[in-house]
Amino acid sequence: MKSTRAKIAVDAMGGDYAPGEIITGALRATEELEVDVLLVGDPEQIQPLMEASGSQNNPHLEVIPSEGVIEMSEEPMAALKQKRKASINVAMDMVKAGRAEAVVSAGHSGAAMAGALLRLGRLKGIDRPAIGAILPTMIAGKSVIILDAGAMVDCRPKFLEQFGLMGTVYSKYVLGNAEPKVGLLNIGEEPSKGNEASIRAHQLMTDNPQIPFVGNAEGRDVLSGKFDVIVCDGFVGNVILKFAEAVGEVLLDILKEELPRGLHGQVGSALLKPNLKRIKQRIDHAEHGGALLLGVDGICIISHGSSQAPSIYNAIRLAKDAIDEKVLTRLRSYSAGTEGLSVDSTVSTNL
Amino acid sequence: MKSTRAKIAVDAMGGDYAPGEIITGALRATEELEVDVLLVGDPEQIQPLMEASGSQNNPHLEVIPSEGVIEMSEEPMAALKQKRKASINVAMDMVKAGRAEAVVSAGHSGAAMAGALLRLGRLKGIDRPAIGAILPTMIAGKSVIILDAGAMVDCRPKFLEQFGLMGTVYSKYVLGNAEPKVGLLNIGEEPSKGNEASIRAHQLMTDNPQIPFVGNAEGRDVLSGKFDVIVCDGFVGNVILKFAEAVGEVLLDILKEELPRGLHGQVGSALLKPNLKRIKQRIDHAEHGGALLLGVDGICIISHGSSQAPSIYNAIRLAKDAIDEKVLTRLRSYSAGTEGLSVDSTVSTNL
Repeated sequence: MKSTRAKIAVDAMGGDYAPGEIITGALRATEELEVDVLLVGDPEQIQPLMEASGSQNNPHLEVIPSEGVIEMSEEPMAALKQKRKASINVAMDMVKAGRAEAVVSAGHSGAAMAGALLRLGRLKGIDRPAIGAILPTMIAGKSVIILDAGAMVDCRPKFLEQFGLMGTVYSKYVLGNAEPKVGLLNIGEEPSKGNEASIRAHQLMTDNPQIPFVGNAEGRDVLSGKFDVIVCDGFVGNVILKFAEAVGEVLLDILKEELPRGLHGQVGSALLKPNLKRIKQRIDHAEHGGALLLGVDGICIISHGSSQAPSIYNAIRLAKDAIDEKVLTRLRSYSAGTEGLSVDSTVSTNL
Repeated sequence: MKSTRAKIAVDAMGGDYAPGEIITGALRATEELEVDVLLVGDPEQIQPLMEASGSQNNPHLEVIPSEGVIEMSEEPMAALKQKRKASINVAMDMVKAGRAEAVVSAGHSGAAMAGALLRLGRLKGIDRPAIGAILPTMIAGKSVIILDAGAMVDCRPKFLEQFGLMGTVYSKYVLGNAEPKVGLLNIGEEPSKGNEASIRAHQLMTDNPQIPFVGNAEGRDVLSGKFDVIVCDGFVGNVILKFAEAVGEVLLDILKEELPRGLHGQVGSALLKPNLKRIKQRIDHAEHGGALLLGVDGICIISHGSSQAPSIYNAIRLAKDAIDEKVLTRLRSYSAGTEGLSVDSTVSTNL
């Protein structure tokens, strides 16, 4: 393996379509991106699939043996401890041992999160990790990162502030927004609106010079493109994320059902096929890779359980972008500056 | 006025398009529905508009004079007390005095809610009111009611249980679902998932025989049609509702932008015009009337601030349905059965 390529450990056993689709997505990534993939899983299942695709000699793909997988029905912490050699544990170990720079998994997301916390630990200055989910906005080509999308269901105001900080770094360096706009998800624009946590978080974020805080964002603003980062607790974020994914599918279903009605509809739909495909791409969450686990001392991409090869490919690309942009180093400097909510100006001037 | 027609007080002064669009919507309602409308507002503004439309002699439309309106920027409680003759106060008084059976307003929703609580009071057995918003589902013709959509941002488990009860009554009698399925919005299907309030509410709703509780609903289930009633606190509900409305608009924008691209796109789009219109109708929230304020001792429909005539018409229809189906009487019997969370079997057998 060449040393300049990003090294990414992929959990080959996690997800509804593992290992087949995971392998296909990983293979494509090694071909199209500057990445080396450590495929973590059961060699007996993986090898035949690699041979069938003629990729057993792919120099950028290495199989790292693991035993077992954390099932969706298992309680993450207990299962992680019991199954020390489960694929997600081994993948995390690759990062801990410095053999990989990131982990991608479509398996049990709670287990991936707990595994990252156990094996990689938290970033200094960050009390709780957050899942950062990336959604398309109504402005073509522009994405928004929503965090937390499900890691912490009850958030203290300080956690929300830290989410704002992590979202800022991510938006700036990975999504390339030189001046990201950060919003706090709330039920109204006024600072006095919302529940206790959001009123206090509004104050904290306003007072933090490291966060380019614009103010409250309402539900209607999430996909408007007015904000680059949307901060919320994991309960609301999870509901919104799953809602958004489903809405995309609902809309595509409605299109499929209504457009071809009647003779005009059939002809018209046929003519519109390429345009409809582009619409699907703009809406489809598979095009937008996975979610990031932010706040742990390592890069982890949590993919959807239903991920197929294109999603895995996009998740690996996301991991590579985060590696290339030194997201961890930047997060470390930023978060060090917020410890105890004080701002260390020597750190911020380094950025 | 004939006494068999439903009598509905409409706040002619509330909303971005008041009074013009409100009057147009109300007029249409008197023509197409069995309703008498009490148009509450400034006669000097209303009369010329009615004359211009030739409806000054409409026997089903009566103007009730009011003075002033609660502005969006005003603090509801203070404004309601200061402006005793504001349109929303006078409209509520019509119900209190027995002259009308329902109120429809597109004005300051906080003021409408506070006004209803002040003047009509709470229903017995209901601790907090909820806004019930109706959204289309992916099953054509099937709607879902989401409550609370913004009345209470911090909810105790007992409030959520009561929302489940009110949603059941509404779904059963107004939306005509003989066996409504009630879900609790949460981040996972298992009863152990979620924050403290949702875990406890899950238990309360499971134990309440008056609620046809199915279990937790995730974000993706909201519009799936799997549930007829979705229960959540007002923070999450408000965010979801505004998100859903915006997503509909985003999609329509994407369609408008992408479909006509290229020559094929232009021809195809032209052929698809009627089908696109039907898609717009299925998605557009204006087609689904307003939201209901449930838990107060009167029927109140809170319309969107941006409501134009079609939304007002639909809101009046919604009010009429609620009147016709004796929603208040039914809510009273149901909620009486839950006082102290005990169930009065004599009440439930009456239903």
